[in-house]
Amino acid sequence: MLYQLSYVCPNSPRFTSAQTETFKVERTEPGLVVNLGPKTANLTDFGKLIMPVKTIWSEDGNVYLLDQTLLPARMETLPISTVEQMWDAIKKLRVRGAPAIGVAAAYGVYVAVKNAAVMEKGADVTHVALRACDYLATSRPTAVNLFWALDRVRQFISQTQGDLEQALLQLAESIREEDDVACRAIGRHGAALLKSGDTVLTHCNAGGLATASYGTALAPIYYAVGEEKKQIAVFADETRPLLQGSRLTAWELKEAGIPVTLICDSMAASVMRSGKISAVIVGADRIAANGDFANKIGTYMVALAAREHRVPFYVAAPMSTIDFNLANGGLIPIEERSADEITGIQGVNVAPEGIQVFNPAFDVTPHEFVTGFITEKGIVKAPFEEGLRRVGKDKGQKT
Amino acid sequence: MLYQLSYVCPNSPRFTSAQTETFKVERTEPGLVVNLGPKTANLTDFGKLIMPVKTIWSEDGNVYLLDQTLLPARMETLPISTVEQMWDAIKKLRVRGAPAIGVAAAYGVYVAVKNAAVMEKGADVTHVALRACDYLATSRPTAVNLFWALDRVRQFISQTQGDLEQALLQLAESIREEDDVACRAIGRHGAALLKSGDTVLTHCNAGGLATASYGTALAPIYYAVGEEKKQIAVFADETRPLLQGSRLTAWELKEAGIPVTLICDSMAASVMRSGKISAVIVGADRIAANGDFANKIGTYMVALAAREHRVPFYVAAPMSTIDFNLANGGLIPIEERSADEITGIQGVNVAPEGIQVFNPAFDVTPHEFVTGFITEKGIVKAPFEEGLRRVGKDKGQKT
Repeated sequence: MLYQLSYVCPNSPRFTSAQTETFKVERTEPGLVVNLGPKTANLTDFGKLIMPVKTIWSEDGNVYLLDQTLLPARMETLPISTVEQMWDAIKKLRVRGAPAIGVAAAYGVYVAVKNAAVMEKGADVTHVALRACDYLATSRPTAVNLFWALDRVRQFISQTQGDLEQALLQLAESIREEDDVACRAIGRHGAALLKSGDTVLTHCNAGGLATASYGTALAPIYYAVGEEKKQIAVFADETRPLLQGSRLTAWELKEAGIPVTLICDSMAASVMRSGKISAVIVGADRIAANGDFANKIGTYMVALAAREHRVPFYVAAPMSTIDFNLANGGLIPIEERSADEITGIQGVNVAPEGIQVFNPAFDVTPHEFVTGFITEKGIVKAPFEEGLRRVGKDKGQKT
Repeated sequence: MLYQLSYVCPNSPRFTSAQTETFKVERTEPGLVVNLGPKTANLTDFGKLIMPVKTIWSEDGNVYLLDQTLLPARMETLPISTVEQMWDAIKKLRVRGAPAIGVAAAYGVYVAVKNAAVMEKGADVTHVALRACDYLATSRPTAVNLFWALDRVRQFISQTQGDLEQALLQLAESIREEDDVACRAIGRHGAALLKSGDTVLTHCNAGGLATASYGTALAPIYYAVGEEKKQIAVFADETRPLLQGSRLTAWELKEAGIPVTLICDSMAASVMRSGKISAVIVGADRIAANGDFANKIGTYMVALAAREHRVPFYVAAPMSTIDFNLANGGLIPIEERSADEITGIQGVNVAPEGIQVFNPAFDVTPHEFVTGFITEKGIVKAPFEEGLRRVGKDKGQKT
């Protein structure tokens, strides 16, 4: 695994104070002596686990994302040079996961303004930016982080004087960095719920690939393994129709060296019944004020199975996922996606020609099924309405 | 739809008594006047729905089966000329479904004896037949009909004098015909539970393709639609990993003209929650004496969802599926199948190379979740132990 480690080199006059650098090491612990080429270093802490892949980022003012539809077969970087490309990337799930979509939206508005400035000297970039916000909002209806990020961008636009293009790039970077900080905080709070030897079941991908760092549902696992040296194993639901569990979750956990077993969605209840699962942790695309939440289709069935088998069921999500405007989950709009996601798998037809299909992308799990929400502000337990508003207020959100 | 219809032709001197013939008609009802080419006929009853495809059959002493692994893309007949081919066809699910496997096993023993007689004049065909029974029993561990059919074949062998080859062929044909009769009886009993306008959810394929005729779980639907003219719609779970729901159930219902909507397994609870489902009907691979039953992996999660949403949950199966030797479902051996069923879909890789996989082919649903068993002897309700033994005794089974 790759770690950002802090160390001192007692035998090297060039490194008298503690240094921080990134290394690939099998294990880390304070006091461990590692050989760093010409020098020998003593690690000063456990270090910070570095995620094996980047989801979305900018370099020299250009925006890139990892095309997740090609995983695990190919790891390809997609340069995003127009707002239409970003819209398409969000719509087609090349970038996905509630927090990452929020980051993507902010980068998308920046790209729109950048192009307008190039195309036409003196273009009304404020107008272009606001139009880009409206346009990107139509890419996916369920993920509230998208709207949260776009609202923030809109407000920012109205307050910005001077170079909007650079300001928007910095805003996008900030949102990405805040996501990283939030993910690590979710990881720290969630890891406290796990003990060495535990096995966690998760559905879909709310991992590093769904965010800018540790992910949400997988953050407690990365934190527990990477920063607390606990032994944690994972069962990953493959998550039909788009197989985010097998293509993304199984892949990123394997890359990070965390033991993972892949199952079909329909096996989760059996696995829980066999006593193998210590806890379920899933992400959320939108959380209503009362704690009902929308997440990838199938989450509700996992919740039913967890309750039946008395397995704690946690929802890990940043506060930006909470929509205090919605009283309950019945009000969350559910995106329906195209039939071919079910009738075909990566281009191979698996169903009869012209068959009727129902393909909701999300379901709503009632709050009664939730043991706790793992947020960057701590664990929220029932009564959720009260608890969510309390941490929301702490964070200065309109609750 | 294709019907076997009984009719009289009042205006044709050649047809003075009632005739029976097979026709493709949109609807049938007693008294309906249909034009049969040169003659006009009055239907005397609703007729008998003819299944659009045959699963396993013999013709001129040769055994054939429909290779179900190729559906729905291709409809190919596989001639079975050795017992090894039959073992392989059962193992690889070219023929599948508890009742059809029983029929296949009987045909398999016949084929073994037929070959031995050809290969070696005066071969010990009794010995060959018994060895074939032992061999075929190793093809799949969960389906009790396989063992039931093989026990019956063994007993038959010990009692047969004279031409064992012909006698075995006739036995296989009888088992097939009994299965047809049992399916139609299951259909009749089950149809009484459905009213016009109902929508049934099913998992896997316990349809015509799993048996020699109407199927088990789909029999009530075929009977209600085909013979009682009720309007019934179906939601079919696609049933990962092998997609029997999309490849087979959706296909055969569509072929029969019954409205069917395909969903992923993980959507069943959401669909029930929306109020769309009137009843769940599934098949069974083995039923323990207390009513716990094994069926395709995922059935247990459907049962959990049905109970939560107060949707009646029925198990349709012939009596030969009941294993009175097993006190409860915990004693049913569960077949584990190979990882590549989950990591690949029809040859396309969908998971990271070398990922660990858990792939149980079945799960056990406790009897508390069952509203009733639909058998050829009628509906069995709780207490199941008593009820199942009663109908078993009626049928002369060792209970």
